[in-house]
Amino acid sequence: MSLGEFDLIARYFDRPVRRSPLGIGDDCALLAPSPGMQLAVSTDMLVEGRHFLSTVAPDRLGHKALAVNLSDLAACGARPLAFTLALSLPRAEAPFLAGLARGLFALADRHDIELVGGDTTSGPLNLCITVFGEVPAGGALLRSGARPGDELWVSHPLHDDEPGWLGDARLALEVFRGTPGLHVPGEAFERLRLAMECPQPRVALGQALRGLATSTIDISDGLMGDLSHVLKRSGAVHGEAGRPLGARLEADWLPRSPLMRAQDDGRQLECLLAGGDDYELLFTAAPERHEAVLAAGRHSATGVRRIGHLTTGGGLEVVGHDGQRLATPWASFDHFRA
Amino acid sequence: MSLGEFDLIARYFDRPVRRSPLGIGDDCALLAPSPGMQLAVSTDMLVEGRHFLSTVAPDRLGHKALAVNLSDLAACGARPLAFTLALSLPRAEAPFLAGLARGLFALADRHDIELVGGDTTSGPLNLCITVFGEVPAGGALLRSGARPGDELWVSHPLHDDEPGWLGDARLALEVFRGTPGLHVPGEAFERLRLAMECPQPRVALGQALRGLATSTIDISDGLMGDLSHVLKRSGAVHGEAGRPLGARLEADWLPRSPLMRAQDDGRQLECLLAGGDDYELLFTAAPERHEAVLAAGRHSATGVRRIGHLTTGGGLEVVGHDGQRLATPWASFDHFRA
Repeated sequence: MSLGEFDLIARYFDRPVRRSPLGIGDDCALLAPSPGMQLAVSTDMLVEGRHFLSTVAPDRLGHKALAVNLSDLAACGARPLAFTLALSLPRAEAPFLAGLARGLFALADRHDIELVGGDTTSGPLNLCITVFGEVPAGGALLRSGARPGDELWVSHPLHDDEPGWLGDARLALEVFRGTPGLHVPGEAFERLRLAMECPQPRVALGQALRGLATSTIDISDGLMGDLSHVLKRSGAVHGEAGRPLGARLEADWLPRSPLMRAQDDGRQLECLLAGGDDYELLFTAAPERHEAVLAAGRHSATGVRRIGHLTTGGGLEVVGHDGQRLATPWASFDHFRA
Repeated sequence: MSLGEFDLIARYFDRPVRRSPLGIGDDCALLAPSPGMQLAVSTDMLVEGRHFLSTVAPDRLGHKALAVNLSDLAACGARPLAFTLALSLPRAEAPFLAGLARGLFALADRHDIELVGGDTTSGPLNLCITVFGEVPAGGALLRSGARPGDELWVSHPLHDDEPGWLGDARLALEVFRGTPGLHVPGEAFERLRLAMECPQPRVALGQALRGLATSTIDISDGLMGDLSHVLKRSGAVHGEAGRPLGARLEADWLPRSPLMRAQDDGRQLECLLAGGDDYELLFTAAPERHEAVLAAGRHSATGVRRIGHLTTGGGLEVVGHDGQRLATPWASFDHFRA
């Protein structure tokens, strides 16, 4: 890129740093977690066509790039502190950069975190954010603590007309793809699109679940896929020999938006269980902490819904209202069962 | 990517973590700097065609992706601890991934650091590494501490036949480009190519310069361009009103390889001063610390050469053996002079 283009990037992304000992512009950023705290680190790379469509508004892209990283911090119960941004751009255009920065910093400000470093290059559009948070030493929420008998929970928006319900991002993608048989009135589509383009990381809930949830993960690859990660990692710790950790999911208990309820049963189940890009928290807790989990939801202004429980030896099964096991043909669990 | 491809990536990149409280496979990695230490963080993104040629061997690409990040830690005087890797790949091919991992982990092992997290996606080839090091609180080497009268130094290999001399990476690039008028015998080309593809980050020297160098930067954009960053940032702190911080560089003092000495004078100067991709350390120190700087070089088994000194009001000038100012037409310093 030309010097002028680098200046353009500096104009939109170089903001004064308030808390870090050293800000953008030196070789490294310096971070110091508070005494007794560990630093939680996560990195996510977003590529056009895979993580966002070329039609996305730049401010929503900026929002999403940071949101998916904050969602990882939420799943660890960490308090967000700072982030770095590495950006590859085909060309530096003022309206695009201005929009990207606007969406990025609006979400950063909402979580009181700052951009402490980065890198910019010319190349195919690619955004790589690394995010830093802090968590009390030994207090991070992991994927590995689930036990047989634990209740299984998922987070959700508080109100029907709030965007971001489980499966809605996938429903939006199907609309973009022109999949036939969808029931989405035009005026409702914007809410679906917000679910896909502007996920809300459950940062406050993650922190409220510290010391309460036995395992936590954020749903990025679809509920069943991410649940299989938890079962695999927790099973290695708490499973019994020859009887791997499993889960029984009650399909009717899954939270869903009014738009989702208007779809065919099969479509609903696929979007809810194998959708992906949800960024809700999926977590487990002991049954005796049921009321405490509901209270954590209230305190963090986040909906929480029990959707099943953990088992031994039963694999991952989804049952309908009559207790009959439902077919879940769209997800492969070879990786987990191996 | 298919599940099989993710398995392939896991095969090459999932290694047991030794020191970090939590390794790859959870939502976040956890890091805890030692008491009294700050965490130094840097992120660099490598894109095909801009940072490496499509002809590069995968193990050298793996080496370089980590090396350019370690070089930033070196420039801060930090001790490397860990890194994350985000990787976008057009397709997952075993020979490529095996080579990439081999080069990456060979360098990681040499510096006793570990991969603590990452992300993989399909897309145009792109490697984004974020590296973590620790440095005593308040002890990081910065770009902003240079003062008028300070001596200006650059690092270099210890022996003529060791690859990685200043400007050699640029000379290799010119050979690849087929630039006419170059004097590079075939058997010597491999050494030039190593300079470009396998830079050696000056990590030990960086740590030895703590408390000694007044400013440090690693040369990635060319010596004059990077020096201008130091002058700009240090000038804002230590410059006098109306008399910005400058530097006088003695062209004949610049360290160079035998191959470089065989080039035309003009070519030499351009490669040495405006080459880029060098990853040597450029630093300043008070004249009374001259012997201590030489000792730091010896202790870290790294060559160090004085190449000039800092001035006030003189801008950035390069002089020949007769003290005549030389023209440096290939670098624009508008950004700095502004």
